[in-house]
Amino acid sequence: MSSTAGQVIKCKAAVAWEAGKPLVIEEVEVAPPQAGEVRLKILYTSLCHTDVYFWDAKGQTPLFPRIFGHEASGIVESVGAGVTHLKPGDHALPVFTGECGDCIHCKSEESNMCELLRINTDRGVMLSDGKSRFSKNGQPIYHFLGTSTFSEYTVAHGGQVAKINPAAPLDKVCVLSCGICTGLGATVNVAKPKPGSSVAIFGLGAVGLAAAEGARISGAKRIIGIDLASNRFEEAKKFGVNEFVNPKDHDKPVQQVIAEMTNGGVDRAVECTGSIQAMVSAFECVHDGWGVAVLVGVPSKDDAFKTAPINFLNERTLKGTFYGNYKPRTDLPSVVERYMKGELEVEKFITHNVTFSEINKAFDYMLKGQSIRCLIRLEH
Amino acid sequence: MSSTAGQVIKCKAAVAWEAGKPLVIEEVEVAPPQAGEVRLKILYTSLCHTDVYFWDAKGQTPLFPRIFGHEASGIVESVGAGVTHLKPGDHALPVFTGECGDCIHCKSEESNMCELLRINTDRGVMLSDGKSRFSKNGQPIYHFLGTSTFSEYTVAHGGQVAKINPAAPLDKVCVLSCGICTGLGATVNVAKPKPGSSVAIFGLGAVGLAAAEGARISGAKRIIGIDLASNRFEEAKKFGVNEFVNPKDHDKPVQQVIAEMTNGGVDRAVECTGSIQAMVSAFECVHDGWGVAVLVGVPSKDDAFKTAPINFLNERTLKGTFYGNYKPRTDLPSVVERYMKGELEVEKFITHNVTFSEINKAFDYMLKGQSIRCLIRLEH
Repeated sequence: MSSTAGQVIKCKAAVAWEAGKPLVIEEVEVAPPQAGEVRLKILYTSLCHTDVYFWDAKGQTPLFPRIFGHEASGIVESVGAGVTHLKPGDHALPVFTGECGDCIHCKSEESNMCELLRINTDRGVMLSDGKSRFSKNGQPIYHFLGTSTFSEYTVAHGGQVAKINPAAPLDKVCVLSCGICTGLGATVNVAKPKPGSSVAIFGLGAVGLAAAEGARISGAKRIIGIDLASNRFEEAKKFGVNEFVNPKDHDKPVQQVIAEMTNGGVDRAVECTGSIQAMVSAFECVHDGWGVAVLVGVPSKDDAFKTAPINFLNERTLKGTFYGNYKPRTDLPSVVERYMKGELEVEKFITHNVTFSEINKAFDYMLKGQSIRCLIRLEH
Repeated sequence: MSSTAGQVIKCKAAVAWEAGKPLVIEEVEVAPPQAGEVRLKILYTSLCHTDVYFWDAKGQTPLFPRIFGHEASGIVESVGAGVTHLKPGDHALPVFTGECGDCIHCKSEESNMCELLRINTDRGVMLSDGKSRFSKNGQPIYHFLGTSTFSEYTVAHGGQVAKINPAAPLDKVCVLSCGICTGLGATVNVAKPKPGSSVAIFGLGAVGLAAAEGARISGAKRIIGIDLASNRFEEAKKFGVNEFVNPKDHDKPVQQVIAEMTNGGVDRAVECTGSIQAMVSAFECVHDGWGVAVLVGVPSKDDAFKTAPINFLNERTLKGTFYGNYKPRTDLPSVVERYMKGELEVEKFITHNVTFSEINKAFDYMLKGQSIRCLIRLEH
């Protein structure tokens, strides 16, 4: 039992007071976890586009003041009543989506879309009582994705916290908590390319590079990266990408370019941009008879996916995935083990490092397109 | 060696002289099989919608005179040079699509879309020499789908002829040669419902009923039939369909009706109508997290499949299939065995029987929607 269990903890957090404005490091109060909840001491966190998207809050419901952050690693400080899978001292990754263990999705082998703890970007409070565990001078501060990892301490639903191997370096596995697993799982769990096969990756950001890493691990022979920014191609080679297509360099649709490069189409395609045009291209560039396209990127609400139905009849498959089909609590430990065995290389995703007080630099790096992942070190 | 091997055979065939006009039983000449080809004595054939569609030739390239027919059973009369998998006397099913054994599709475990012998509705001649093997008084008569089974004897590419168990009754397994396998395979090979699951079948014609039969064999608990003709529901019960929805009976979209019936969606859906609206409904009625929709029906060329991409992101899968993903030569023998073991019930598909001279009655039964399958007995 830690000495702080059951107590309010005062600690530093990076608070977003207004949309699009630099975060401010503040001393905040973090209430103890309630039943089913876990309080975590965050050691490392990293910045993901989703944080920036909701911090920017263009077209989103603004919810401020708020503590962002959802890609992180830490140590369990204390647990609320009924939490049996975690205890103080456990090393853990908080996750933006959860696994309650009881709903039809958690009970299905095929789904990771937990009914209770599925991602909810609009909720800024805890599920159990509709309240925030963060406050400053009595003013509540909203949560984000149930994780709010831009804080030295945070409270999360126990179903959103995965216990991992205590030997795993927390400054590395931190990035497995969101983007890397999303891309990696899209390839290894959903697209499932065979050794020697060809895979097209649409979008070479962090998620796309993780999808390419999955193709590399799977033994794919041709890994074709597609991106509108040609300066991403050099970096992508480290992740197994060995051919490149910039749609801007061609007059014909990119799916046609890829079909011509691959004698009729690639074996697998993974779409990691969220652009509806890329989604259609990813589907239409897979080979008939066996091609599988996997959609990862989050589309705009008004987008419509449109294709000729004969593309399906010719035995193509189109699937979508959420968080790489990983069940957070059940499957994350094994992803950590993949890293521990040297199979999955996470170091190459971490291009920048800053201290917690420099957190706004991480936003700059991302907004300028300079970083894949910027690690933010908490300074307890 | 049969006494007719290498000779022209004179026999009866039902010739379509003009689009939409009754077939005429004529004496025709059937040339011997060339290299790679097989001449079959047809014992039974049955009528499929595809025959009627191309006989009617509305919107199709008219190709007459032509001998239709592609669902049949028979005995090998003779084989051309190089045919090693069949010999005279073998019991066999001719198939409208083939398996050359050498192309990338035949070599892939996942595809049955043979590059050489994939269905070709426009070709009325043999592949090897671009000529017909049928003639009457020197006038060539076009082939259909490489099978032309409305004839006492026909010539087919060896890759389009599956050898089957000689103990199998040819008057029953005849119907496995096309429609039944298309629907059955869509369910058992592609949708793969688990025991106890729910399956929606769109369209309760022969293919849809075969898809339902596949769901019944798979142990599905709820088999929901969807059809605009309510009079099909009673018959469909024999094929395992235990719930019915007629979209005309509801003000809301049928996918919403089904989602409400099934607490969020069915586990699997199989679309057997070819209507683009049914295709979209079939996809949108499957459960998020694990739902799989399979498209079987052939759409119009100008149709566009359109859905919100979030439906994919929520972990639904959309697949198309061709001939139930069966490889004709490799897989048909095992479907026949399924029937021989009593697992697959084919008798219930055969609602009508006529002799060859009454073949036009089979067209009437189908056009009036009275038959599932009408068996046509050749009278050697």
